[in-house]
Amino acid sequence: MKKQIAVLPGDGIGAEVAESAISVLKVVSEKFGHEFEFKKGLIGGCAIDEYGTPLPDETLTICRESDAILLGAVGGPKWDGNPSELRPEKGLLTLRKSLDLFANLRPVTVFESLAEASTLKFEVVNGVDLMIVRELTGGLYFGRPSERIGENKDAVVDTLHYTRKEIERIVQKGFELAQVRRKKLTSVDKANVLESSRMWREVVEEIAPKFPDVEYDHRLVDDAAMQLIRNPKQFDVIVTENLFGDILSDEASMMTGSLGMLPSASLSADGPGLYEPVHGSAPDIAGQGKANPLAMILSSAMMLKYSFNLSEEASAIESAVQNVLNEGYRTQDIADSHSPVISTTEMTEKVKAA
Amino acid sequence: MKKQIAVLPGDGIGAEVAESAISVLKVVSEKFGHEFEFKKGLIGGCAIDEYGTPLPDETLTICRESDAILLGAVGGPKWDGNPSELRPEKGLLTLRKSLDLFANLRPVTVFESLAEASTLKFEVVNGVDLMIVRELTGGLYFGRPSERIGENKDAVVDTLHYTRKEIERIVQKGFELAQVRRKKLTSVDKANVLESSRMWREVVEEIAPKFPDVEYDHRLVDDAAMQLIRNPKQFDVIVTENLFGDILSDEASMMTGSLGMLPSASLSADGPGLYEPVHGSAPDIAGQGKANPLAMILSSAMMLKYSFNLSEEASAIESAVQNVLNEGYRTQDIADSHSPVISTTEMTEKVKAA
Ligand SMILES: CC(C)[C@H](C(=O)O)[C@@H](O)C(=O)O
Ligand SMILES: CC(C)[C@H](C(=O)O)[C@@H](O)C(=O)O
Repeated sequence: MKKQIAVLPGDGIGAEVAESAISVLKVVSEKFGHEFEFKKGLIGGCAIDEYGTPLPDETLTICRESDAILLGAVGGPKWDGNPSELRPEKGLLTLRKSLDLFANLRPVTVFESLAEASTLKFEVVNGVDLMIVRELTGGLYFGRPSERIGENKDAVVDTLHYTRKEIERIVQKGFELAQVRRKKLTSVDKANVLESSRMWREVVEEIAPKFPDVEYDHRLVDDAAMQLIRNPKQFDVIVTENLFGDILSDEASMMTGSLGMLPSASLSADGPGLYEPVHGSAPDIAGQGKANPLAMILSSAMMLKYSFNLSEEASAIESAVQNVLNEGYRTQDIADSHSPVISTTEMTEKVKAA
Repeated sequence: MKKQIAVLPGDGIGAEVAESAISVLKVVSEKFGHEFEFKKGLIGGCAIDEYGTPLPDETLTICRESDAILLGAVGGPKWDGNPSELRPEKGLLTLRKSLDLFANLRPVTVFESLAEASTLKFEVVNGVDLMIVRELTGGLYFGRPSERIGENKDAVVDTLHYTRKEIERIVQKGFELAQVRRKKLTSVDKANVLESSRMWREVVEEIAPKFPDVEYDHRLVDDAAMQLIRNPKQFDVIVTENLFGDILSDEASMMTGSLGMLPSASLSADGPGLYEPVHGSAPDIAGQGKANPLAMILSSAMMLKYSFNLSEEASAIESAVQNVLNEGYRTQDIADSHSPVISTTEMTEKVKAA
């Protein structure tokens, strides 16, 4: 199989972890006889510095012409004071919107060898295997107006906007994913307060009959935030609105003890998918070889699976990661007192060898 | 001191826990020589059944004429299918708005004797003592439009609206509370996406110089959801927007192992305050004497402190609760294998005796 992959390292540790993923993918391509061509582009703070915009047209073109996109991370204190149009995150938000990447898949899998690293009790998190399906191109993130109002600009509005179609396609995706997993879908909303949530609930009820083998329920977002801590194993797939998904997926990431373990995929109806670690650019440790490359490596496994349909290759990466962890190797973020701490490249080499 | 207290038991276990609070307050009034007069009113589902509205005018009048309000809980499956205007929660939302109860104080205190009940590790939660200050009368909850739009009503909007004044008064309250606690304030927003959050951040920066002894920082809501689990002891006072506060406070409640322990206060600038447990009406156990009355009892302690300035009396209730827990008494929701499970009234008697 021949594929072109856009690589957007971004800022901070983005470059290091992107290199890790590329080198692991090279091993995979040799072993399984594929041809992956990598094309790099700038996004985020480094793009602002070079081109005066967080998402240069050139980058967008590279992405559009690729079969999939790998992204490291964007952001850093250097650009924190910038106006919103010139912030690194804006590049990511615009990319999501431009490519219509409406379905953000965030699996949370707790590796038994790491379960102790969580602040939650071992027996609560060990065995957790859930996926948050977050709507990514609508809701409060993109609704207009989003501005100061009133004569003296002394009031402000943001707008939570959805079309029924937007809700339908993400709910459909949630059901589809549940169907190939443990067949349980939890839809999260705030239907006792928001009209958009009431439409969301209606859509879930409309689509559910198409998936008679999937068990589903509705939960209010405040309750869901609680249940994720009380008993995370009750969940299989959670489908929810953009901002709720942002909050709940970061919360759920704590099951694993470290953000450094969590991959994500952002999919559109038919264009290239975007794969990125859930963690940020961690400017404080950038360039020191301390970054955990596993989230990025696992993101590239998701790419193989969801964009290229290469499930066997994806599993090969996932079991390599599992093995390396079982052997006790740790980057500093997931280290405990009795494990040898290794660097970003050492970890990458271990995964490649495995 | 002579005070009139409105009591709105509401639905489900509301009636039981409201009785508990009243009887504890009677002990306090005798012991400290106060006169508390209780006036009951209907709210929520029972009010819908009786008057066809979740907040009858009569109830609102009783509340307005009182010095403080105690509320049990509202809601139940019986009214879940109702249109939004005829839902029990609507009564609560209208009451908050009508009395301008903009500041919702949700303390999360982990009692050492209960710390084991949390799904978080003992050493992570033991000693947690934080307070979430949630804006309660603005934001997505009350912004207009909140409706179906488009020719075929196939789109929907909700509106996150704030005036600068609304943000100022809640941020001010957050700083004031931090000042009399451990002098640390965390403001939570989503300033990398929302314009309202950017105004929120500006207001925090403007008010901060008035409180030079309070250390403060800003956190994004997704990060805050994570940090609450990673290291809850880092927080003293958290001030945030209505919906963020709803989600984060329910999440934080899991530190204590049970919602049955958590009180709340909702305050206006000068009218009567509203005091209610964070838990819901728990229709499944209503009328069976299984409800944990401690959240309601602790809410009445907050009333003594915040509405009547009776700190000594409030502390007397709080230490009574602490003592009863130390002695090992538990209602079923907080029971472990080696504690005797007692009923709502037994627990109330224990607290009264203590
Ligand atoms: C950087 C930020 C805009 C982004 C979001 O809120 O979507 C991030 O938190 C994420 O979850 O990918
Ligand atoms: C019942 C509901 C409307 C309410 C809210 O969301 O404010 C509740 O969850 C709360 O936190 O008091």
